[in-house]
Amino acid sequence: MARSIDLAVIPGDGIGPEVVDQGLKVLSAVLPGDVKLETTRYDLGATRWHATGETLPEAELERLKGHDAILLGAVGDPTVPSGVLERGLLLKLRFAFDHYVNLRPSKLFPNTPTPLAGRPDIDFVVVREGTEGLYVGNGGSVRTGTPAEIANEVSVNTAYGVERVVRDAFERAAARPRRKLTLVHKNNVLVHAGHLWQRTVDRIAQEYPQVTTDYLHVDAATIFLVTQPERFDVIVTDNLFGDILTDLAAAVTGGIGLAASGNINPTGAFPSMFEPVHGSAPDIAGTGKADPTATVLSVALLLRHLGYEAEAVRVEDVVTADLAERDAATPRSTDAIGDALAARVAG
Amino acid sequence: MARSIDLAVIPGDGIGPEVVDQGLKVLSAVLPGDVKLETTRYDLGATRWHATGETLPEAELERLKGHDAILLGAVGDPTVPSGVLERGLLLKLRFAFDHYVNLRPSKLFPNTPTPLAGRPDIDFVVVREGTEGLYVGNGGSVRTGTPAEIANEVSVNTAYGVERVVRDAFERAAARPRRKLTLVHKNNVLVHAGHLWQRTVDRIAQEYPQVTTDYLHVDAATIFLVTQPERFDVIVTDNLFGDILTDLAAAVTGGIGLAASGNINPTGAFPSMFEPVHGSAPDIAGTGKADPTATVLSVALLLRHLGYEAEAVRVEDVVTADLAERDAATPRSTDAIGDALAARVAG
Ligand SMILES: CC(C)[C@H](C(=O)O)[C@@H](O)C(=O)O
Ligand SMILES: CC(C)[C@H](C(=O)O)[C@@H](O)C(=O)O
Repeated sequence: MARSIDLAVIPGDGIGPEVVDQGLKVLSAVLPGDVKLETTRYDLGATRWHATGETLPEAELERLKGHDAILLGAVGDPTVPSGVLERGLLLKLRFAFDHYVNLRPSKLFPNTPTPLAGRPDIDFVVVREGTEGLYVGNGGSVRTGTPAEIANEVSVNTAYGVERVVRDAFERAAARPRRKLTLVHKNNVLVHAGHLWQRTVDRIAQEYPQVTTDYLHVDAATIFLVTQPERFDVIVTDNLFGDILTDLAAAVTGGIGLAASGNINPTGAFPSMFEPVHGSAPDIAGTGKADPTATVLSVALLLRHLGYEAEAVRVEDVVTADLAERDAATPRSTDAIGDALAARVAG
Repeated sequence: MARSIDLAVIPGDGIGPEVVDQGLKVLSAVLPGDVKLETTRYDLGATRWHATGETLPEAELERLKGHDAILLGAVGDPTVPSGVLERGLLLKLRFAFDHYVNLRPSKLFPNTPTPLAGRPDIDFVVVREGTEGLYVGNGGSVRTGTPAEIANEVSVNTAYGVERVVRDAFERAAARPRRKLTLVHKNNVLVHAGHLWQRTVDRIAQEYPQVTTDYLHVDAATIFLVTQPERFDVIVTDNLFGDILTDLAAAVTGGIGLAASGNINPTGAFPSMFEPVHGSAPDIAGTGKADPTATVLSVALLLRHLGYEAEAVRVEDVVTADLAERDAATPRSTDAIGDALAARVAG
């Protein structure tokens, strides 16, 4: 295990910088004294784009490549046309660094409010493919702006890309107590892509006889997420379905303020990137209302990815304890939550 | 208003025939004495496919064209490869009859169980585009079954197709008390298709100054559907997002057993088709456990479409009254619910 962490930090826009600060507080506090943490901030996002027109210059992409991992807050702002920062920065990083496993755990912590009646027992993880599908940017339009416009978007799926993420999902399922893997797709309509996914899962399943597999159409999966979320253990799915399911999963487990994610390159060829699932929430930026917990839980995923398993568990335990004591009537500021978590992991 | 209805009936598979029978009972019972109802059954679905290999022969498609409307139960069975009946029958009908408005109302009826805590006030309608997007069947794979396989699926969106459904949605929004239209898409990733949708909504909005419009990414929309569903009035969205959102909407409003839909061709050039949102549920076929209410509510949409507004309202009122009296502890059979609803609309 490396006894130093060379971390790139992309605070980004809106509440991004605020929540990242708390994540870093907790990270510093939890690391053993002999681990050297070095952070390099990258000024990327809406402000940079307004100032220079740049989203992610090649030179910066090169420099980012040299770090052990990346911590990202959030990017995006209503003053920037939709898609510019998403495609030019966030997705560019996920694609350039081949983050083919977009890992999104969903857990309903004790005492955390859920919109679901009866507080079901929720504890699953979504393994979302991160480098293919409708996210490849393989679209275009002709006769744009005329009554004869056609706008297409292509979902690209490869045996190479599907197999590697399905393998990762089986590994994760095999390591969990319930050992269950659910493929979510829409193979009755998207027959070509859907059948590739289904065939791949069926084939790899033979190597994991201890893992139970099943299949749900994405529309049915959203139903189960609200009526029977306890049925899920590991979900593997494509980029877009994963995007949709993980927001819904976040909603039923206490909201987007708690949902962590890792954009992981399991081979280690490129740095993996950890970020809260939530966006930049410009409406509450600077008010101290942002909940940094999703970022702190993303730091736990980062620690685990870098081999600091005990420290990852410690952060998760501390978050669990903090959530258990929260009182909706007396909300704390972003900073106060960060301080409390940092004090607790250190203590 | 036509004083006769020439109805095509496609009972289909699984629970399809059972629920369709109840829908027809209610339809016969609610129609004024002078309206002649003629029904023609079409034997389409899994049984037919197993027997003959046919999904929807051209000659039958031609004959179907001659009816005033179509009532469909459900198609699909685990013994038929996924996609065969969906693409070859259900979607073939939607496309051949240019059902560009897939109308799906979502309402939380009194006394109906919802997985959501606090029973929010839910009453919105999804206008799902029905003839474009990822449903066009414009996909394929090469090197299929090899490690070098590529499987693509193309989402096709046209100004023509988007404008007509957006106009329909504005009309519906303008006719509702809250006059609010929400576009749901993913325009930060699917920039070409998403911007076509956004530009179209922005342009048509100028003709409907009385309608408020807003926009949500599909992932965020799923969050609001469980945390704040009362915010929705009319949602307009593409074929796939509409598929996903309406299953989730059904889940939060008492389940798929109550969700009705109309595949509508507003021009009248082709017969519109009404069907419950649920599938064929082969596991409960023949047990009398299927709830025919979604089909009965689809019959209300059919009545409204054919100009029988008073009768449509009557069916909806009767369903509301029946639901208000339901007692989960004493479930009734499919038939019993159909009989009760038919008696009530007649009475
Ligand atoms: C901002 C957007 C491009 C992104 C996505 O769609 O992946 C976000 O919704 C997420 O889930 O991380
Ligand atoms: C059966 C399937 C093709 C269909 C769809 O995806 O449209 C169904 O889910 C629906 O919503 O009517």
